[in-house]
Amino acid sequence: MDAPDARTIKAAIQAQRASMQALFDQLRQDGLDEPGVSRDTYGAGEQRAHATVTKAAEALGLEIAHDDAANLYMTLPGRDRSAPVLVIGSHLDSVPHGGNFDGAAGVLAGLATVTALRTLGLTPDRDIVVMGIRAEESVWFQVSYIGSRGSLGTLPEGALDVRRVDTGRTLADHISDCGGNPEALRTRARHFDPSRIRAYLELHIEQAPSLVEAGVPVAICTGIPGNFRFPDAWIEGRTDHVGTPRRFRHDAATAGAEFAIALDQLWADYDQRNIPMACTLGRFHTDPAAHGLTIVPGTFHFSLDVRAYDEATLAELEDKVGRIIQGIEQRRAVRFHLGQQARAAVGMVDPAIKAGLEAAARAQGVPVLHIGSPASHDAAAFAAAGVPMGMLFVRNENGSHNPHEAMTIEDFLDGASVLAQWLTTAT
Amino acid sequence: MDAPDARTIKAAIQAQRASMQALFDQLRQDGLDEPGVSRDTYGAGEQRAHATVTKAAEALGLEIAHDDAANLYMTLPGRDRSAPVLVIGSHLDSVPHGGNFDGAAGVLAGLATVTALRTLGLTPDRDIVVMGIRAEESVWFQVSYIGSRGSLGTLPEGALDVRRVDTGRTLADHISDCGGNPEALRTRARHFDPSRIRAYLELHIEQAPSLVEAGVPVAICTGIPGNFRFPDAWIEGRTDHVGTPRRFRHDAATAGAEFAIALDQLWADYDQRNIPMACTLGRFHTDPAAHGLTIVPGTFHFSLDVRAYDEATLAELEDKVGRIIQGIEQRRAVRFHLGQQARAAVGMVDPAIKAGLEAAARAQGVPVLHIGSPASHDAAAFAAAGVPMGMLFVRNENGSHNPHEAMTIEDFLDGASVLAQWLTTAT
Repeated sequence: MDAPDARTIKAAIQAQRASMQALFDQLRQDGLDEPGVSRDTYGAGEQRAHATVTKAAEALGLEIAHDDAANLYMTLPGRDRSAPVLVIGSHLDSVPHGGNFDGAAGVLAGLATVTALRTLGLTPDRDIVVMGIRAEESVWFQVSYIGSRGSLGTLPEGALDVRRVDTGRTLADHISDCGGNPEALRTRARHFDPSRIRAYLELHIEQAPSLVEAGVPVAICTGIPGNFRFPDAWIEGRTDHVGTPRRFRHDAATAGAEFAIALDQLWADYDQRNIPMACTLGRFHTDPAAHGLTIVPGTFHFSLDVRAYDEATLAELEDKVGRIIQGIEQRRAVRFHLGQQARAAVGMVDPAIKAGLEAAARAQGVPVLHIGSPASHDAAAFAAAGVPMGMLFVRNENGSHNPHEAMTIEDFLDGASVLAQWLTTAT
Repeated sequence: MDAPDARTIKAAIQAQRASMQALFDQLRQDGLDEPGVSRDTYGAGEQRAHATVTKAAEALGLEIAHDDAANLYMTLPGRDRSAPVLVIGSHLDSVPHGGNFDGAAGVLAGLATVTALRTLGLTPDRDIVVMGIRAEESVWFQVSYIGSRGSLGTLPEGALDVRRVDTGRTLADHISDCGGNPEALRTRARHFDPSRIRAYLELHIEQAPSLVEAGVPVAICTGIPGNFRFPDAWIEGRTDHVGTPRRFRHDAATAGAEFAIALDQLWADYDQRNIPMACTLGRFHTDPAAHGLTIVPGTFHFSLDVRAYDEATLAELEDKVGRIIQGIEQRRAVRFHLGQQARAAVGMVDPAIKAGLEAAARAQGVPVLHIGSPASHDAAAFAAAGVPMGMLFVRNENGSHNPHEAMTIEDFLDGASVLAQWLTTAT
């Protein structure tokens, strides 16, 4: 397509300020679960978000489709309908009592971008598919990238039989509820052959305050961390009376504390060497059915997420975590049971897309940072399948996965402008 | 009374092997709540234990009485019924899923001792009162020594309005259920004027494996630790997304871990200097309603019990805990909320009773250790009221406050022999 000038593109995005604000407000209303919003994965909350976004896409005249994983595809047809498509996507679920923008901002940025093309009377060379992805938040099923990997036929073995932590029902059942076809997913049926995707682009709120700290509205992603995870690990010690002398104890909670502090020191060391990583003990607890003021904890439970930006660092960290555990087991006469391990590969950003986004930001006059994504994103699943991938982050106060995340509509429109600029010039 | 020889006393105790075993078996049956036994404080479990012990005391022809706190008194009348009485007591409640001997062994040792006197046709100079004490296990109401302090009129302000952690009902209501009179307790009515008690003796299983380690059946107590406690403390941090860089985090769980490790190091230091103390984080947990694999914990909850054998050490430890907390608050930008503090005074053992028990053990040929009590005991409440106090510990495998505690009947009878020997010679 013929690229309009940057100012025209910016105006076409800015013109959507009110409609985008209204769409965000509707999504907040749909998901309201004070404090914050809950768009539960393959549940009522996510369903309402899909309905609202579908309605908006229908009003724009986009083609609506779904796949076996109940992902939502909203397509602006291109000149050559057989050419590999361009996907702009993000997820529509949220953590319990999360914020309104985590995920949804990326889907709305896709809608804003295709709306701008429509307004400007531009027909893209290829189909542009805005994708509302299912089940990105692994807190529900403790499996990552369910929707995007379902779409690509790369869902891991056994995932469909995992149970949602709150309902206790299987992923397969939940997918069925939402109109998907879990049996087809079992045969690794896929909606997308990766070779049929020209590129995958995702805008997402930043899930850390780096942009707030720097006073910059938008960041270009340099990579998505891979991770290894132990969702349900525990430490076996021995329950004892509160007066038990130190030399006799096998205190599982103190062993857990030593583990946490060793990981924290490991992280501090990597920070000092400027090797980005992160390490989180999200669940970290004595057993509510057995603990008490006068009982030395005999068991201790935790979840662990360790993430880094290259596979070598991840492998090194895994080795170091293993050594830390060995040391604690010996020193404290306890035993770690790590349970099932989950993994996500590092998501490499396509250098040409990254350069294109930099040029687009310059053209739009939007100042940008370059940051490694603090979080995991569906974009990593596309990258893992061989799809050229790029991401933008939008400034967000108060972190994410909590009710206080805060993105301004101005920053959102800046991010969408960069996306639209890239789309009209780079494809 | 005229003291029989040591061999005669031993025989009178050994003769009760079967009846004592049967009584322990009945108590286990009464409290069975797999794994282990639950004799809930002022609840159905404790009630059944009281009924069983009362029945046994009635069969022995002891006088039965109760006080406003529903404690049980089983009296062998002495020659001079107006002389200050001798109390042999312990508690009949247990922790949830605890062992069968914690508490009950002391009450049964009292019954075995008075039975021995009866068998030998001895009438003591003064009344001997076997006391089945209520509510020693502070896990239920998070208040210590409820029964013994109720008996002595030293129950702390507000205790009657505290709620049981599981039922949510007040101590006053629970006492009423069990035939007590909480309104009388409010006026500090007491069953015992401390000056009317010649001595308080308690036999208890050891709640640590020192005797097992040393291969000795019985220990003579050198003191009962005082403590300070924070039953419901928590740390306020900030909930964040799993990818949040280290420099931005206010991770409440890692702050809790640093606290645990600092306390553990403090304890190791005291151990090295041979100053006995103990320190337990019994509850130590992220919030089950909010935690998850991909959420940096914003709050962290714990209970703390710190105990030592003299008031100066306790005061020093309290000061050090305060400094540790200050340091963590500064380093990790979190805030500790310690909530209500509970305290128990150090229980000093009467030197003459201690010497008498040593002589009695020698006479009975029972090898003994001298140890500071690892745990708190009702004996400390009597000592705090000015009653001369002494304690014996009986060897116990696998610690206490768990289903695996294990005392042999042989060790129990050894302990009871020492008690009976002391009683016939020292009173």
